[in-house]
Amino acid sequence: MTYQLYYWDGLQGRGEFVRLALEEARADYVEVARGDEQDGLGTGAMIDVLDSRSEAYLPYAPPFLQDGDLIISQTANILFYLGPKLNLAPKVESLRYVANGLQLTIADMVTEAHDTHHPLASGMYYEEQKEAAKIRATDFIDNRIPKFMGYFERVLKQNPAGDKHMVGDTLTYVDLSMFQLIDGLHYAFPRAMKHFGERHPRLARLHDAVLKRPNIAAYLDSERRLPYNETCVFRHYPELDKDVR
Amino acid sequence: MTYQLYYWDGLQGRGEFVRLALEEARADYVEVARGDEQDGLGTGAMIDVLDSRSEAYLPYAPPFLQDGDLIISQTANILFYLGPKLNLAPKVESLRYVANGLQLTIADMVTEAHDTHHPLASGMYYEEQKEAAKIRATDFIDNRIPKFMGYFERVLKQNPAGDKHMVGDTLTYVDLSMFQLIDGLHYAFPRAMKHFGERHPRLARLHDAVLKRPNIAAYLDSERRLPYNETCVFRHYPELDKDVR
Repeated sequence: MTYQLYYWDGLQGRGEFVRLALEEARADYVEVARGDEQDGLGTGAMIDVLDSRSEAYLPYAPPFLQDGDLIISQTANILFYLGPKLNLAPKVESLRYVANGLQLTIADMVTEAHDTHHPLASGMYYEEQKEAAKIRATDFIDNRIPKFMGYFERVLKQNPAGDKHMVGDTLTYVDLSMFQLIDGLHYAFPRAMKHFGERHPRLARLHDAVLKRPNIAAYLDSERRLPYNETCVFRHYPELDKDVR
Repeated sequence: MTYQLYYWDGLQGRGEFVRLALEEARADYVEVARGDEQDGLGTGAMIDVLDSRSEAYLPYAPPFLQDGDLIISQTANILFYLGPKLNLAPKVESLRYVANGLQLTIADMVTEAHDTHHPLASGMYYEEQKEAAKIRATDFIDNRIPKFMGYFERVLKQNPAGDKHMVGDTLTYVDLSMFQLIDGLHYAFPRAMKHFGERHPRLARLHDAVLKRPNIAAYLDSERRLPYNETCVFRHYPELDKDVR
């Protein structure tokens, strides 16, 4: 079964959390928006689903995943659905809800990372809201990164199955997403993240361990991995970054 | 089995989405933070879980639900877990993912509703960010309410099982959450929502149908339902509201 992943071409964004799971599992998938119009693919094919006046499982926004007739929307939901199929979910069913709770907390932090450069309106340009962005980014660096990452570090520390994984004792999609979140923050806020490894050693080790996984390393080295850029959730605007004590 | 719901006392907030499901199902539950300290309850008992240095399933923030030893965090995740147990999830398993995708889109809009009064920093007072709040609230009213609600209306219209429910042909927790979202927006933005029923007739009918359900009506009339207030997600600040064309 080939999964069809719908996400904007040209950026990592929220789609990247799904891509990392599909790539780690070497799953068979097509990126619809990045495909060729001659094959019925491309961004237009994605817009057609969003604009459909008959689709029964209408998604609000990318990313969404098509598996046969079923369309599954929302990043954390896609991963909850794919996790067991890709062997990237906890084996114990109750732990799947623990995994989903963590994934949704990662999603909340991703939204806050986005809002550092778009605090006033997602439809306005960054340049129109730079002053507000500076205030929000400063709060994000001073208060939100420590709060979220302090929490995630404690989750690792208190995992009864050991501090190598966010939940249980095997790799799950939550570990892959945690890698992406930390990686994105390093890109966006290199000064603020400079001492990340000293403050959150377990998270830093998890990030590095994911980076070395053969399928992930091969993916990151391929053309399938899009570079970070300033159309994405994680944007590097030096004026929003700052050193932390 | 008595569920233990942990959420801040004194406000509806995100906890309300869980409360509505528990109340509709007449489930046996305790509100930990609203209980008596002499019974080992109260806000302190909730903070103890958040501050725990040994809890294996550490939540980031309220609401969270305890069911036996398991702690489930994040509103949509709690509802995904409770849905089948409360007979408020679609019977067809694949549709549970459709329900979860809708619930997460509701959650996204709730976050945006919150950010209308706190666009710069959740830790700052509203009074410190009133100017930015006015810009964000204007964008929310002009662009975000129409986009989200236009989408949800289409979901009802395109539901192959009929336009009475967000997913499938029976009441689910998504319908209850949709009620709460619409109701909260009416409270926060009465001017902007004045013509809601003309623009989104199916959603307005869904809201009214939920309101008339006996268990919901009894709950809303009880002391268990906290009034809307300005410590919550949905806040009525007249200066942020406006008429729409």
